[in-house]
Amino acid sequence: MAADSLTAAFLDNMLGMPLSAESLERAKYGILDFIASAFAGRADAGVLKLLRAAEEEGGRPLAPALFHGRRVSREQSALVNGFMGHALDYDDVHVEVRGHPSAVILPALIALADKGGDGRRDGRRFLGAYIVGVEAMARIALALSNDHYERGFHNTATAGALAAAIAGAYYLDWPVEQAAQALGLAATQAGGLRVHFGTETKPLHAGLAAAAAVRSLRFAEAGVQASRASLDGKLGFFAVFGAGEERARAELLREDAVPRIVKPGLWHKLYPFCSAAYFGWHAAEQIGPVPLGRIDGIEIAFTGRSDAALIHRRPENGEEGRFSIEYIAALVLSGRGIRAGDFRRVPVDDEIRAYMDRMRRVNVTDAPPGVRYTRITVRLEGGGTLEATGDKPKGSAGNPVTEEELLRKYDEVVQTPNAAAIRDRILRLDKLSDVREFIELLGAAAE
Amino acid sequence: MAADSLTAAFLDNMLGMPLSAESLERAKYGILDFIASAFAGRADAGVLKLLRAAEEEGGRPLAPALFHGRRVSREQSALVNGFMGHALDYDDVHVEVRGHPSAVILPALIALADKGGDGRRDGRRFLGAYIVGVEAMARIALALSNDHYERGFHNTATAGALAAAIAGAYYLDWPVEQAAQALGLAATQAGGLRVHFGTETKPLHAGLAAAAAVRSLRFAEAGVQASRASLDGKLGFFAVFGAGEERARAELLREDAVPRIVKPGLWHKLYPFCSAAYFGWHAAEQIGPVPLGRIDGIEIAFTGRSDAALIHRRPENGEEGRFSIEYIAALVLSGRGIRAGDFRRVPVDDEIRAYMDRMRRVNVTDAPPGVRYTRITVRLEGGGTLEATGDKPKGSAGNPVTEEELLRKYDEVVQTPNAAAIRDRILRLDKLSDVREFIELLGAAAE
Repeated sequence: MAADSLTAAFLDNMLGMPLSAESLERAKYGILDFIASAFAGRADAGVLKLLRAAEEEGGRPLAPALFHGRRVSREQSALVNGFMGHALDYDDVHVEVRGHPSAVILPALIALADKGGDGRRDGRRFLGAYIVGVEAMARIALALSNDHYERGFHNTATAGALAAAIAGAYYLDWPVEQAAQALGLAATQAGGLRVHFGTETKPLHAGLAAAAAVRSLRFAEAGVQASRASLDGKLGFFAVFGAGEERARAELLREDAVPRIVKPGLWHKLYPFCSAAYFGWHAAEQIGPVPLGRIDGIEIAFTGRSDAALIHRRPENGEEGRFSIEYIAALVLSGRGIRAGDFRRVPVDDEIRAYMDRMRRVNVTDAPPGVRYTRITVRLEGGGTLEATGDKPKGSAGNPVTEEELLRKYDEVVQTPNAAAIRDRILRLDKLSDVREFIELLGAAAE
Repeated sequence: MAADSLTAAFLDNMLGMPLSAESLERAKYGILDFIASAFAGRADAGVLKLLRAAEEEGGRPLAPALFHGRRVSREQSALVNGFMGHALDYDDVHVEVRGHPSAVILPALIALADKGGDGRRDGRRFLGAYIVGVEAMARIALALSNDHYERGFHNTATAGALAAAIAGAYYLDWPVEQAAQALGLAATQAGGLRVHFGTETKPLHAGLAAAAAVRSLRFAEAGVQASRASLDGKLGFFAVFGAGEERARAELLREDAVPRIVKPGLWHKLYPFCSAAYFGWHAAEQIGPVPLGRIDGIEIAFTGRSDAALIHRRPENGEEGRFSIEYIAALVLSGRGIRAGDFRRVPVDDEIRAYMDRMRRVNVTDAPPGVRYTRITVRLEGGGTLEATGDKPKGSAGNPVTEEELLRKYDEVVQTPNAAAIRDRILRLDKLSDVREFIELLGAAAE
């Protein structure tokens, strides 16, 4: 591989990434939150459909379908667990990823957990692989630029497949040369369209990306040749999917003192709806309930195209409502507040529709770069307005979910006899000499 | 599904496509040629790597790895057979597809052959599904426009995944609504980068696309929801990957009297190298051998960017030489001619290198649209030139490979006790009431 290959330089950087104590701590809470989110999604209809679909394909039962007491092939495990983790949009996001890192990277690592490299399957390496995966995914997404997402690609799927392949290569302790083969194979399988948002295919993307990474590592292990410089040049991944090689070089090889799992860090969620609606939720909470009869109109202003993910303006049901600021704002302004059951495939009722029908969106095009907020303005009948700006929603960098809150989410959500044992293993994962017993616990059926 | 959805209208069109007697005949010869190409590639190193990689994944043995006497899971079957068919670049191309239809569509259909719809597994339906797949792939590629390929996507992989899903839905006799789910799932898995040309990942793309189609059909069968209009609108497949919805609508819904498997028809190959080099080969053959000492320089002129697939200008070995006009022209101009062994992973020797070192490419930008040729100009030492234009290479629409030549290719290549029986089944496939015995014959180990 040419020394100046972008692909090799990036992999060299990622596979040799130092692990700080702080990043290891953040990774533990990332895993804790992913496990809670997967548990919450374990009986989602889509998970059951995928498990049914897995039956015909079959495969060697080497890896778990989380909380189902059932082992499936490595690819099926990555697929099902990726879907499960993202099913409710309850899992973490990362603003630089503009997508969901843990629901792709962790299912790929769980599927590979018993392999290890050089016989090493210790928790520190597992955590390290996850940290590297998040780092790689953020850098890849930044290199792709916002245009990639706005054109219609789902970063969780596209950047996710590459990042999970890199995380896997780290876990397996592969040299750069072999990792480049897996990365090239993942790059050529990268795909995922936002047109599917609001259907089961959105969480499926997390699973497909994780499975593509596992497949790419399997092919590379078998020696299937691919370009060793798949990220480079005019035909490389970043020229085709992103903003070109030059930008990619700057973003992929940036020297940062603080790993991205620490800063800006994972954005954990206390409610299962799309993070792009969190800013508007923050604004609505500041305004509070307003009787429908008093409202003349409601304007919701987004900086730039920060509402791109919110594809439903008049959602028909709660599942579509996960991607609707109108739905979230209506829940808050009507005084109902947000509850766990609000995001199921249940029709939106007339009162909420009436609130939504008064809303329209605008986009603020003159906000300075990097500034993101959602402003809600309620015009009242007979004059007067109520207005609030949401710029630090719970979970975002300026208002993080605390470790205590994450532990509470975990304890409230994960209702299985193994819950405490799993929590214990996660919180001392860096001390475990072998992750297999931990993975066994994750696979056991929830009762 | 909205009546005006592009996705639904296209599927309605494809699933209801009438089958002419001529298209059924062409389809038989398409299958014959694919089987010959797969047989030639059955022991390619990459095939053996994929079979090894399949072992860890395992799966229910429901479909054959062609000529290997071994059944694997449906997805693995599609993967391995797609690779096998395209391994030597010996399989058909289609100019409107700008890629390889049969190596994607037929492996997907072979993997599904025993399923059938409504218990129907007859040869006519199998042929029909293949005809529809070729039609769909050509229309999708035309809708994507040349920019898609030139940007760096491999149409065989991208258009292939969608087309094979449609072919599968036809074979399974699915209604438009269910086919739309499978198509959406295939569209969101579409990928494949030309940066891998000249490595094993190029033929792998055919297998990956076929496997993605099989996976998409499996998910749709299990009821996984996807957008029902994944080809439509600003976030749809054609807006993201192609030249937008408007162009797509025109190309996808075009009313053509003659199916594309008939006109322009499949381009069959008598030699296993990239079809983009066939025009230059035609030119070189007209010039004939020229001693190296007499040559001052050689200019190779391509219309437009018709050399985009020929990514190697100074190939290191015969495998890279599949994608090099310089290599092909050097073989002809040196007087060696083209032989089967010329496209293996064997280093290019000094004499051929010396010829190639005298060559340079130019692009003719003022040729009328739709006109394609390659012109070779040999400047001789001491003045004088030899020049020829290749515009009707063997296999292209103006100079088709005949049925006799295809039968000869088949008979020369397919050396197994079952060869005659397979040939017999293919040539009366429209009369077979059940394709399973035919698929069994294809799966049996070659001796």
